[in-house]
Amino acid sequence: MVGASPNPTKFGNRYLEALINVGFKGKLYPVNPSDGEICGLKAYSSMRDIPGSVEYVIVCIPAQHVLSVLDDCVVKGVKVVQFFTAGFSETGEEEGRRLEREMVKKAREGGFRIIGPNCIGVYSPAHLMPYGPMEMLGEVGSVGFISQSGGHAGRVIGIGLRRWIHFSKVVSFGNGCDLDSVDYLEYLAVDPDTKIIGAYLEGTRDARRFFQLAKEISRNKPMIIWKGGKTDPGSEAAYSHTGSLAISDAIWTAVMKQAGVIRVDSLEELADTMLTFQHFPPFLGENVAIVAGLAGGGGGESVSSTDACASVGLNVPPFADETRRKLKAILPPAGCILRNPLDMGGVGGVLEILEKTMEIVAADPRIDLIIVNEHLDQLLMGLSKETLDKMNDIFIRTREIKPIVIVSSPGFVSTEMIALEKKLANARVTVYPSLDRAAKAIANMNWYYRFHLGAEST
Amino acid sequence: MVGASPNPTKFGNRYLEALINVGFKGKLYPVNPSDGEICGLKAYSSMRDIPGSVEYVIVCIPAQHVLSVLDDCVVKGVKVVQFFTAGFSETGEEEGRRLEREMVKKAREGGFRIIGPNCIGVYSPAHLMPYGPMEMLGEVGSVGFISQSGGHAGRVIGIGLRRWIHFSKVVSFGNGCDLDSVDYLEYLAVDPDTKIIGAYLEGTRDARRFFQLAKEISRNKPMIIWKGGKTDPGSEAAYSHTGSLAISDAIWTAVMKQAGVIRVDSLEELADTMLTFQHFPPFLGENVAIVAGLAGGGGGESVSSTDACASVGLNVPPFADETRRKLKAILPPAGCILRNPLDMGGVGGVLEILEKTMEIVAADPRIDLIIVNEHLDQLLMGLSKETLDKMNDIFIRTREIKPIVIVSSPGFVSTEMIALEKKLANARVTVYPSLDRAAKAIANMNWYYRFHLGAEST
Repeated sequence: MVGASPNPTKFGNRYLEALINVGFKGKLYPVNPSDGEICGLKAYSSMRDIPGSVEYVIVCIPAQHVLSVLDDCVVKGVKVVQFFTAGFSETGEEEGRRLEREMVKKAREGGFRIIGPNCIGVYSPAHLMPYGPMEMLGEVGSVGFISQSGGHAGRVIGIGLRRWIHFSKVVSFGNGCDLDSVDYLEYLAVDPDTKIIGAYLEGTRDARRFFQLAKEISRNKPMIIWKGGKTDPGSEAAYSHTGSLAISDAIWTAVMKQAGVIRVDSLEELADTMLTFQHFPPFLGENVAIVAGLAGGGGGESVSSTDACASVGLNVPPFADETRRKLKAILPPAGCILRNPLDMGGVGGVLEILEKTMEIVAADPRIDLIIVNEHLDQLLMGLSKETLDKMNDIFIRTREIKPIVIVSSPGFVSTEMIALEKKLANARVTVYPSLDRAAKAIANMNWYYRFHLGAEST
Repeated sequence: MVGASPNPTKFGNRYLEALINVGFKGKLYPVNPSDGEICGLKAYSSMRDIPGSVEYVIVCIPAQHVLSVLDDCVVKGVKVVQFFTAGFSETGEEEGRRLEREMVKKAREGGFRIIGPNCIGVYSPAHLMPYGPMEMLGEVGSVGFISQSGGHAGRVIGIGLRRWIHFSKVVSFGNGCDLDSVDYLEYLAVDPDTKIIGAYLEGTRDARRFFQLAKEISRNKPMIIWKGGKTDPGSEAAYSHTGSLAISDAIWTAVMKQAGVIRVDSLEELADTMLTFQHFPPFLGENVAIVAGLAGGGGGESVSSTDACASVGLNVPPFADETRRKLKAILPPAGCILRNPLDMGGVGGVLEILEKTMEIVAADPRIDLIIVNEHLDQLLMGLSKETLDKMNDIFIRTREIKPIVIVSSPGFVSTEMIALEKKLANARVTVYPSLDRAAKAIANMNWYYRFHLGAEST
């Protein structure tokens, strides 16, 4: 850690603290001109004084001092240098660009690679490597994510912790002066731990290579890309941020579509879509059954759910006659609406009725996927945590018959609610915070599989 | 409470329990054929046995018994009857429609009015009247809300509790067989406690009167309407729910626009927009300054914020030269981007710098409104609650100079975060859970004031 600091407000301290606190297993060497101890570890005034070899270097010192650090890296046989340090090409000044060229030259000569500069770097829960100063590790999973923005990568990891998106690797690579988006994508394409690839990008240095690669990768692994700078003013801001040159939104959209890559428009849609792929095997969920009104008041939800689905091209087909007949036999006539969307009229808490209802709906041959408007926060006002747990067990059992997802608004988030949602997530029953977001993520998944399973690839 | 029940799973019990538990001040009379005690109150086998007069009746008994209850209402001089009872016109059966006609006839003859049937009814925090079985009262405020869906009204109240939207009155009126949307709107139009009017509607019986009224009201009070059934399948679902006949979405959109009414497309946008009006006096916030990167990683947020604003027609103009010059004097060169959007490069926790930065940005004559990407959940990982509290005090002081809003993703909701957000809300600094939602709500407010302040009313 070059630029390790005893001052807990400095990133050179917080990176090191986070590595120690999450239990990183490798050896850690603080480097700081003043020697002494930092975070309880012996500090070295120069990398050259560290006994033995050094594999990975994190740099948190001002830009003007970085070149000599790279000379030390050559001496120590370093493989990768990650630069938190900013103040390079993103400043728009020639001096910044010159420094980056020098850094890359030294990397080539010294046989090492550079992550950044102007980035937070790598998050790898399998290696107990936290995301910069963020002292939290999620479970190891199948989602790889790359980002030109350290902030957005941090938010994606944060959403992942709250909603159990499990990552293989995340990397924020900032200016990408050496390793760029295509390099990270090539890595994730062949990484056996990564099954789904997400990205936040503002541009790419080699558009032709990027698009070709995206097309190849998306055949085998779903790719979901959020591109910043889709508007002209946004694109100007992107230039100031990472020096990325504008790609017109129309061209970007067209080429991503040709490549079979899912293009999303917000952090929320990105997270929802990655989570959906994490939870579902390849399938088309175009014909949707909607279950609403578990605790009453399901009529309005039926309408809005239908609007949300229809707006993104999902069908809400009528139930088969057999389904209606069976539902009529178990659900009370007043307060319920026995069509698709199904309004349970408030009897969702009666477990026997709920179990039978879900069995009947799941058995309908016209239905590919079930959306339940559960709203745990509201149910928790009238039902016990134990009852809700049993209701969720019913949904988890339903999933063995048919894909099922849950809509549950954040509302008052409570410990109980998080525990309930976690159990659903562990059983791969996806929980979305709104109808519209559920519908959009499912539509994104459908688009991908329809494209790659042939129907739209002509 | 006709149909009061000792069984705590029944609504006839939960309505009564909620009234008692939130401290309703009026006299409560449970009516139940079996007499005895219900919820600790003496129960009456008939309304006629209740000593003295009865003003307001809540009915939770099956549909086939309601007419005789209305006869009792005439005897007792009742003013309003609210029907939780469902199974009327929404069933699509002639018997249901016939019953509603009979109910209205009895109401006319008896001189009382009907709320519902098939509804949750009235929520009035000023009268300590909870929303059906929901045992929570928010603060009394200026937002009136009417809804054809009891579920959506419940969710709006729930969001209001979490985000401090303060209501004057909310009413879910279901089938609206007697009092319909226009009646409630006429009431809210002249209600001195109501300054902002929101609605969830699926249709209206008298479209001409509705549009005329909306046009008149919206001149004085912002009106925000979410209409269910905007797609054809959604519109079919609406017919099953409240028997509402379709109004084509194109016609609805055009007429609402002509009437100067804000049309929103989701529960979230509805809540965000009502909250925005609650917090701001009439003004146009078209020229936006964006402040990002309080704890680092602000570059990506700058880009996405700009995209979010530009997508809904907000401007992110360059800062005045004076502003840039002053910012350059206090912000470090590396890691910061000294344009609009402003990336603070992680020094937002240094209170003196933050205070000066906000003063400088607020003083820029080109700026109408400031959006701060704060993300309390992420800041709480590195800064103390006390520091964040002081940061928020700076934003609250900024509001005295210029309108300011905060974007803070829900992330891991903690008690600390809720306390921090509440203080901001009390100072009328609106907190939105995402960039896109902030931008859309501000754009909605701008559209309204531009329309009604003349610029677009030609």
